[in-house]
Amino acid sequence: MVTAFAPATVANLNCGFDVLGLAIDAPGDEVSVWFNETKGQVRIQQIEGDGGKLSYDPQKNTATAGIVTLLRHVNAKKGVDVIIRKNMPLGSGLGSSAASAVAGVVAANHLLGNPLTKRELVAFALDGEEVASGARHADNVAPSLLGGLTLIRSYDPLDIIELPFARNLNIVVVHPQVEILTKEARLILPQQIPLAVAINQTGNIAAFIAALYERDTALLSRSMTDLFAEPYRAKAIPYFAELKQTALANGAVAFGISGSGPSVFAIAPTQPATAKVANEVCKILQLHQINCTAYISKLNTRGAEILT
Amino acid sequence: MVTAFAPATVANLNCGFDVLGLAIDAPGDEVSVWFNETKGQVRIQQIEGDGGKLSYDPQKNTATAGIVTLLRHVNAKKGVDVIIRKNMPLGSGLGSSAASAVAGVVAANHLLGNPLTKRELVAFALDGEEVASGARHADNVAPSLLGGLTLIRSYDPLDIIELPFARNLNIVVVHPQVEILTKEARLILPQQIPLAVAINQTGNIAAFIAALYERDTALLSRSMTDLFAEPYRAKAIPYFAELKQTALANGAVAFGISGSGPSVFAIAPTQPATAKVANEVCKILQLHQINCTAYISKLNTRGAEILT
Repeated sequence: MVTAFAPATVANLNCGFDVLGLAIDAPGDEVSVWFNETKGQVRIQQIEGDGGKLSYDPQKNTATAGIVTLLRHVNAKKGVDVIIRKNMPLGSGLGSSAASAVAGVVAANHLLGNPLTKRELVAFALDGEEVASGARHADNVAPSLLGGLTLIRSYDPLDIIELPFARNLNIVVVHPQVEILTKEARLILPQQIPLAVAINQTGNIAAFIAALYERDTALLSRSMTDLFAEPYRAKAIPYFAELKQTALANGAVAFGISGSGPSVFAIAPTQPATAKVANEVCKILQLHQINCTAYISKLNTRGAEILT
Repeated sequence: MVTAFAPATVANLNCGFDVLGLAIDAPGDEVSVWFNETKGQVRIQQIEGDGGKLSYDPQKNTATAGIVTLLRHVNAKKGVDVIIRKNMPLGSGLGSSAASAVAGVVAANHLLGNPLTKRELVAFALDGEEVASGARHADNVAPSLLGGLTLIRSYDPLDIIELPFARNLNIVVVHPQVEILTKEARLILPQQIPLAVAINQTGNIAAFIAALYERDTALLSRSMTDLFAEPYRAKAIPYFAELKQTALANGAVAFGISGSGPSVFAIAPTQPATAKVANEVCKILQLHQINCTAYISKLNTRGAEILT
């Protein structure tokens, strides 16, 4: 039996809607796999931590849909039985579906003797992601699989670039316990945007990349502005404006929506600063009777891995 | 008498519409200035090389409008007489108006004893640029003034970032002798664009910046795609598709419209490759009875300077 872990991810990072994402150390999902004797068959034996919400049909479960296509691709002689352990909430903005999809294909690939590289597994993890979000978004899948901070330059052909990230920057993700589905979160975005807004966002993401290479925290902070999604999605996140103001007033250099929310993230220059931001942001939510969980982490540079 | 030179520039660079620009060594405009005794008065004594097209009204000439506001800003006790030497065609896509605006304020600032830094002069050069293009576009002004490859992260507040550029990359600009006015070139662009197109362009510009830092020519090449302007403006440039195909087939790693055209630019890895691209592109234009001029250059890292 082989067990793989795939980390949670923060996608978009304000200035990189649909193209930027980074992996954090925890939480993450786990998928265990072992062979069965029926060629190509994938069976889900158990799902833990999903509150009974996920399908046992391997074609309809994000953790197994990629295993199905992977077995077909390598023409495996056996089938695979699967146990899925969800360690993060669904619809949280933490890349929950991507983490399951990635853990599934990484575990199965290892069981098969690693016929594919991590980069080659992206396409199969996207088969899983597609089940959950209805689209082949790689902005969570790529960092969960490869680790670090990744850029999707292009979807067709898929072109993933691994970016540097300053080691002294810490990440906190706060998950207010309200659910937003990615599919629905996308529906509230306009299909057309003013050219001027698009130009502004290109300026910001370009500056963000320069800031990473220059290790310029002030520039990083200025450039992490979201003109595409935040103006629309912030409304769906309780007390967003107040949370943002509080985070920035307490040492965060950036604050925004993690993926399509409702989780929010902040970046801070020190571990104590991150803890303070987490505390203050959670305090506000609790004041309004909203339960929340905070995850404090460095950048996860390893990505998905086999647990031994 | 003080004379300043300000270089031509290539704005947009495909993936950086309105935010990226770089300076080349030649051509460039020259402005000479000397004091007159009337406080705040700016007089244009002579204009060379414009074919009689430019105004002698200092408020309506891009080379002097910034001098007018500069004299006011520093509360100069004298006035300034001016000679303008245009060494590049108007409406060429080479940043002609920006070069004149920059040369004007750099010359006047030097004459005044350099009260302002180059960065502080940007705002005054924009006063000049505004006369020509009707807008305060800094994507030509910034590289002409500061040199190198610049990014305008934000216009309000103005945030200019100087980017690295690999020394082994050479630039060629080919100017087909047809005129396109920036104002008109902007009118053919749509005011709204699909969100999907904007996302694609953010992926490309982000990858372009990473490619500059990583010195990754292949990535630079892949990322220099223009989804905002080229689909609309290419129609106004004679035989654009043929020129592009020829440039890329002859060793160019990137090819596109310089500013709002009609000049086109290419980037190539060696000086001989650049010369070959220039030759082949010009050959096609000449075949179609269109006169053209080619400018081959390294990146100009000095920007505007005082001639001695």
